[in-house]
Formats: sequence, C-alpha cells, structure tokens
Amino acid sequence: MKVLGIDTASNIASVAVVQGQHVLAEQRSDTSGHRADLLVLVDAVCTAAGVTARDLDGIAIGAGPGSFTGLRIGMATAKGIAFAAVRPLWAVSSLAALALPDLVADPSAIVVGVLDARRGEVYAGAYAIGSSGPALVGEERVLPPGELAAFAPAGARFVGDAAGAYPELAQLPGTWGQTPSGSAVAIIAQGGARVDALVSGAPTYIRPSEAEVKYPNGVPGALRKR
Amino acid sequence: MKVLGIDTASNIASVAVVQGQHVLAEQRSDTSGHRADLLVLVDAVCTAAGVTARDLDGIAIGAGPGSFTGLRIGMATAKGIAFAAVRPLWAVSSLAALALPDLVADPSAIVVGVLDARRGEVYAGAYAIGSSGPALVGEERVLPPGELAAFAPAGARFVGDAAGAYPELAQLPGTWGQTPSGSAVAIIAQGGARVDALVSGAPTYIRPSEAEVKYPNGVPGALRKR
Repeated sequence: MKVLGIDTASNIASVAVVQGQHVLAEQRSDTSGHRADLLVLVDAVCTAAGVTARDLDGIAIGAGPGSFTGLRIGMATAKGIAFAAVRPLWAVSSLAALALPDLVADPSAIVVGVLDARRGEVYAGAYAIGSSGPALVGEERVLPPGELAAFAPAGARFVGDAAGAYPELAQLPGTWGQTPSGSAVAIIAQGGARVDALVSGAPTYIRPSEAEVKYPNGVPGALRKR
Repeated sequence: MKVLGIDTASNIASVAVVQGQHVLAEQRSDTSGHRADLLVLVDAVCTAAGVTARDLDGIAIGAGPGSFTGLRIGMATAKGIAFAAVRPLWAVSSLAALALPDLVADPSAIVVGVLDARRGEVYAGAYAIGSSGPALVGEERVLPPGELAAFAPAGARFVGDAAGAYPELAQLPGTWGQTPSGSAVAIIAQGGARVDALVSGAPTYIRPSEAEVKYPNGVPGALRKR
C-alpha cells in the first residue's frame, strides 16, 4: 500500500511517500515567508519515489492543530490530488504524527506533541500507542507553555518545535526541534486513527476564537472514523 | 477542449467546466466565513458536467488580485488537481475574467474590473479585447475608490463587486454586484492570455506590503506566457 503523506501544521512542510512502514522518499521545506510551493515539494517527492498520483492507494494529510494558512493550503492541495486521482483522503492529527517516532521507539511511553501556536501559547496533545496507532490521552489543547507540565500525564515525555519560541520548555524531558513528518502522517493513516476527509474534512484549529470551525465533523481531539 | 475553471478572488467562489466557449456546468458559493468547501463545489460541477478530472484538457485558475486566503486555497486546490490528473494549469487575471462578459457583449468597449480589496481600497484593471482575449490597458492597481474615475481610460465602463462596500461607486457607469466566474477564467485560458502555473504559479496580491510575492514570474498585470 503506497500512501502520500503531507504535513503543513508547522513552519516546516513535510511530504513523503511510504509503502507500509517503509519510507520511499521524504522531503521537508521551510515555508516561513511563503516562498516555498507545496506542490513543488509533492512533485519532487513523488518523482524521487518513482510514483505518479495514480500509483498511490491514498493521500494522508496532517489536519493540525497548527498554522491557519499552512493547514488550509495543505488540506486544499491534498483534496485536489485525492479528487483528481480518485483516491481516498485521510486526515490524522499532526500532534499524533509528531509523537509517532518516540512512541515507536518506546511503545510503553506517553508522548506529548507540542507545536508553537504563537500569541504566547502552544498546541499540545498526549499520545500513547493504541491498537490502531497513536491514541489520544485526554484531549488536544491550546495553552500557555507554563501549563504544559501540569497538562501532561505523569511520566510523559515531550516532542515538538516550541522550545525555540519558549526556551523554558527545553527544561521539560523530551526531544525539541522536531516538527510533524509526512511519513508519520502516512503511516498513521494506514491504521484506524484517521478521518475520511475528501469532501467535508477541515483543518483542526482548536483556538476558542475559531470555535465555529473546530471539529466540523464532531471529532474531538483523537480522530475517529466518520 | 474541456477546461475546469476556478475563481476564488472574491467572497463568491465560482467553478465551471466549459467546452470551448460553451458552459457545461457552473456553480457559485459564498465562502465568507469559510464554511463552504471548494472541493465540494468542484466535485458537484464536474458531476453535473459529466466529467472526471481525467476528461479535462486543462485546469484554469483566477490568480487574483483578491482575498489572500481565498486565492491561496484556490491555487492549492487547482495545483493538486492538475498535478494528479497530469494536466496543464493555467492562471489568468481575475479582473480580466470579471470584465469578459461585458467585453464579449461590446467588443469595442474598455471595461474596468473592480474588486473590494478591503482596508478602504479596491483592486482595478482596465481591459479591452485583444487578439487572444482580454488585454490589459495600463496596469492592475490597488487604490482608493475615489481614484477609480481618474484611473479608468476615457469612456470606460465598470464591472465589479465593490459598490456594496463603497456605495459611491454605484454612480460610475457599469454593472455592479458581479464577481469573477469560473467559466470566464476557463474561456480566457483557452486563448493566449494565460500563464502556465503548475509549478511556480502564485496568486497576484498587488498590495505594496506584499511586494515580495508580487508577480514572482515577472508577469506585469496582463498575464503573458512564460
């Protein structure tokens, strides 16, 4: 099963083509300043993997939470590809994708994915390995970095990009300087922790001021099948 | 020749499938509030026209000027479709698309397309019929509505949506309450007034503060082939 995975929740867009758990090709691009074009990245990765859109069995998109414009461009690009290739589009949590490598390395761990939400806040979600991939513990939240230690389950480790913006986070145990990868998105989507998103899927914004667009499918935090 | 045309420069997204000058299907959707999903509209219009993405000879996108998020979502969706369907993507001016119906009705006219740019300004571009479709007279500009009469060539008529936001514009001769149509975008793209945009195409924002993203291909106002 070959899946194209895209994540644009952070400043670093990531695109991969995976076959099962095996990464055929993966590239990242710094999109701050909007200079990079996501389609250029998709084209390069598909070429490197030796696939066209029609060779794919599905397209997987990191639905956030994360940057508003980044998520919308990622979702629109993924929807266009899935529509034209007549393939399913699956959405997964970008925070679950962020946590996946550490969960694979230690399946007994609880890993909190943390992404910079700007305006003095971070997005956070705690994940443990479940029967079909990363399973959300509690709910995904947007909160000040100072509340992160209290938010996390006991013994949890952290992974994310937010220690650059909030240096105090580097004191929390974990791996900083990480962003969600397209390969993790594609690998998670092959399990059950995904949403079929071609028609009605929308990014996950979380912020209270955007509550009207939060989880339009009634999907709380952990993504469930519709 | 069947072409999918998309315009998202205004609050009203428009999608059409045309065959030559003939409109096979067209739908509009109010996207203010971001409730509508562009892909739903594309899917509905393709179904109504009886085509899949692979039946298309090309995809045409209105590149603006217009709303930042709308243009980026339109461009991303169109790029995804063109990439996966392995079809060309053409970009045309949304102001030219706005002017097209009045230019077709009176080929000797000069028609100024006008769209609300918010912050007390409008986007404007004057068009006349050229050998390969609408041809720009002067350049596309962002300016206060009060400068529109002086900006327009003598004898020009106006068409656009900005008279709702700026009621004084209704005194200028023309057709108000109009937004660019996907069918006009697709019809113009079949002529020469287009840019091949699959890889490097970006929306046209015009505003001085966004000068670094203005015309990344060195394309001034009227779109020329690269």
